[in-house]
Amino acid sequence: MADNMHKPAGTVADDPDSFNQSHDLIASNKVEGTNVYSPNDEKIGSIYNFMVDKKSGKVSYAVMSFGGFLGLGERYHPLPWDNLTYDTNVGGYVVNVTREQLDDAPSYAMDEDPWNDPAYGRRVHEYYGTPYI
Amino acid sequence: MADNMHKPAGTVADDPDSFNQSHDLIASNKVEGTNVYSPNDEKIGSIYNFMVDKKSGKVSYAVMSFGGFLGLGERYHPLPWDNLTYDTNVGGYVVNVTREQLDDAPSYAMDEDPWNDPAYGRRVHEYYGTPYI
Repeated sequence: MADNMHKPAGTVADDPDSFNQSHDLIASNKVEGTNVYSPNDEKIGSIYNFMVDKKSGKVSYAVMSFGGFLGLGERYHPLPWDNLTYDTNVGGYVVNVTREQLDDAPSYAMDEDPWNDPAYGRRVHEYYGTPYI
Repeated sequence: MADNMHKPAGTVADDPDSFNQSHDLIASNKVEGTNVYSPNDEKIGSIYNFMVDKKSGKVSYAVMSFGGFLGLGERYHPLPWDNLTYDTNVGGYVVNVTREQLDDAPSYAMDEDPWNDPAYGRRVHEYYGTPYI
C-alpha cells in the first residue's frame, strides 16, 4: 500500500470503531466498505473484503464490489493490494483504472469461486500489469 | 500464520461467502468472527478484526474480543498474528494462552484507542514473548 495512505476510512467522532485508527496500522473492518475511485474521482465501487496470504500474512488483493442490488447482479473485482492508494481528499482508495476498463478485468459473481484456481491471482496481476510474486 | 492453517473458518455449502476459500489465501471477512481457543480447547473469544501494517501490507495483530453483551463490557485483546494457528479439529484459531493469562494481557474497551500510542504494539509483543519488528 502506498505510503500516502495515512488515514483510514472516514470516521466520525462518535464512531464506536474510531479506536481502530492509528498512524501505522489500519483495521480490517475499516478497509471493508471503503469507497474506491478512479483517477478522475469517479466512484467505481467499494471494498468488499481482502485476501490475505496465509503463509506470509500479507494482504494480496482487495476485492472491490460494484453493481447489483442486495448482492444480486453484483460483481467482485480483485485488485492487487499495492495498486490501492488512500486519498484523504476523496476519503477513499484510488486505483489507476476506469470503470470501462473494469468491464474486461477479472471478476466473479457471488456464487463463483475463482480463487480455487491457483492461476487466478496471476491473471489478476497480469491484467493490471503488476508483478506476481 | 502457521502453515497448518489450510482451511478458513467453517462454512456450509450454501454459504454465499464460500467462494472466499482457497488453499493459499483467506478472506478478511472469514477471519473476522472466527472462534479462538486456548491449547486445552477452551473457547477464549473470537476475532473482532485485525490490524494491517499500511506500509508493508502485512497483518500485524488479530484483535480478539470476549466478554460483554452487545458490545457493553466487551474487551479487545490484540494478539500477534503469528501466534495464531488454525486448527481444523476445533474449527478455529488456537493461541498459546489461557483465559486466566488474558486477564493480565494488553486489552482495551470499545471507547479506548491504544493504537495511537506507538509503543502499544511493542507491549503486546513483549507480553506474548514474540519479536517486535
